[in-house]
Amino acid sequence: MARTIQSLERAAAVLRLLAGGERRLGLSDIASSIGLAKGTTHGLLRTLQQEGFVEQDPHSGKYQLGAELLRLGNSYLDVHELRARALVWTDDLARSSGESAYLGVLHQQGVLIVHHVFRPDDSRQVLEVGAMQPLHSTALGKVLAAFDPVAHNEALETGFEAITERTVTEPADFEALLDDVRARGWASDVGETWEGVASVAAPILDRRKVPVGAVGITGAEERMLGPEGLHQRLVAAVRDCARSVSRDLGAGRF
Amino acid sequence: MARTIQSLERAAAVLRLLAGGERRLGLSDIASSIGLAKGTTHGLLRTLQQEGFVEQDPHSGKYQLGAELLRLGNSYLDVHELRARALVWTDDLARSSGESAYLGVLHQQGVLIVHHVFRPDDSRQVLEVGAMQPLHSTALGKVLAAFDPVAHNEALETGFEAITERTVTEPADFEALLDDVRARGWASDVGETWEGVASVAAPILDRRKVPVGAVGITGAEERMLGPEGLHQRLVAAVRDCARSVSRDLGAGRF
Repeated sequence: MARTIQSLERAAAVLRLLAGGERRLGLSDIASSIGLAKGTTHGLLRTLQQEGFVEQDPHSGKYQLGAELLRLGNSYLDVHELRARALVWTDDLARSSGESAYLGVLHQQGVLIVHHVFRPDDSRQVLEVGAMQPLHSTALGKVLAAFDPVAHNEALETGFEAITERTVTEPADFEALLDDVRARGWASDVGETWEGVASVAAPILDRRKVPVGAVGITGAEERMLGPEGLHQRLVAAVRDCARSVSRDLGAGRF
Repeated sequence: MARTIQSLERAAAVLRLLAGGERRLGLSDIASSIGLAKGTTHGLLRTLQQEGFVEQDPHSGKYQLGAELLRLGNSYLDVHELRARALVWTDDLARSSGESAYLGVLHQQGVLIVHHVFRPDDSRQVLEVGAMQPLHSTALGKVLAAFDPVAHNEALETGFEAITERTVTEPADFEALLDDVRARGWASDVGETWEGVASVAAPILDRRKVPVGAVGITGAEERMLGPEGLHQRLVAAVRDCARSVSRDLGAGRF
C-alpha cells in the first residue's frame, strides 16, 4: 500500500485556500491559514508558481491561482465521457425547453457543473462550467443524493444550510423528499437555492444502472411554473434527455 | 532562497502527461513516461487521486485527470482581472462583428484562451476556454509575440511548425511579420492555423503600457475577407474593443 505524500497534500490545501474566500493572499496569510511555517509555505508556493499553478502579483506580492489550472481543467472536460455523450442531448434540451440546461456530477460535497448550455435567447449569461452547487437544495443535487449512496452520505455530512427561506433544513424532511425523488424519478428545486428560480433534474445511469450524473434545466419561476406546479412538458423534456444520455452510456431500456 | 519541492514537480509532470496525448494511462505507462519507479509513481497517483486531481477508472485501472482541476480552473477565471474587465467589451465585439470573440493570454509556449464569446447565431459551437493556440500562426499569438518580449522568446524557442500551407515557418519572415504588426497595431491570420478561417487581433495594455493579453475575432474567410483583404470594419471593431479594455485596465488614452 503506497503512502500518500505530505508535500502534495499541503500543496492541494494551498490551492483550495486560494480557490475560496479571499483568492489573493500574502505569504503570511497562507502560512497561518494552513498551519505551516513561512519557510515551508514559501517552498510550496515557489514550486507551485514554477509549475504555473499559482501566480504572484508583481506589485502586491500576493498569490492567486495560476493559468495552468485552467488548461488542465479544460483537458479534464475533453476526457469526460459523460459530458461527451451528453453534448448533443443537452443542446436539444435547452432548445426544446427554452431554458438553460446543466449537466452535473458528484464532486467532494457538492455538484460540479461539467456542462452548461445557455438559455436560447439573446440575454447575457455567465458560463457556470466548473462551478459547484449544493447537494441538499438543488434539483441536480437531490437527484444525486437520492440515487447515489456516496452523494447521500456527503449531503448528510455537509448538513442543511438554509440558503433561502424555502430550503429544506431538517434531516427527516430531506429523507422524505429523497423518497419522493426515488419514487417519481426526478427532483425539483423551487426557490430553495435561488429566490424566484426553479429547476428540474433527472438521473443519468450507466450500463450497470449506477447513477453517474444528473441533467436538468433551470429558469425563472414565472416560466417554469403554472397553477399546477412545474410544467409537465418541462419535466418530460428533462426525463427524455436523461434517458437518452443513459441509453448512450449503455443503460438498458428497462 | 526557498528550494523547489521534487514531489510537487513530479506530480505536475504526471498531470501534464495526462493532459496531453493518450489521456487515459496505466501505472506502468505513467512511470516509464516520466522516468520514475512504479512504487514512487503509485505514491504520487494515490495522493493526486485522494486530492481529486486524478481519477482512476474502476474497470481498466487507468488514470485520467480529475474533477478538482475543473473546479480550480473555474476559480482561476473568477479571479482573473483582465477577463473580468473584458467580459462586456468582448460581448459587444461579438455582436458588432457577428463573429466569435476570444480573449487570450500568454501561457507557457502558447496563447491560453481565457474567454470566448460565441458567434451570435444559432449554430452549434464548442467552448474553447482553457484551450491553447500557437504563438506563431494565430492572430492572438502574433500580437503577443509582437508586443511582449517574453512571448517573443517563447515563439522563437518553440519554432515554427507548418500547420497549414500558409503558415509562416521561416524565422526571418516571422520577424518581418512582427514588425508589420507593431507598425499597424494589429495582427491577422488568414488560413495559417485553420484552413478557410481568418482572425484579427489587437493588444491589450495595462496602465504601464505593458501588453497583458490580446483580443480578437475569428470566422470563415468568406465572411471576414473582401476583395481588398480583411474587412476594415472588422479590424476597427477589434481595435476599438482592445482600446476599451485597455482603458478599463488604466492605460492612458495616448
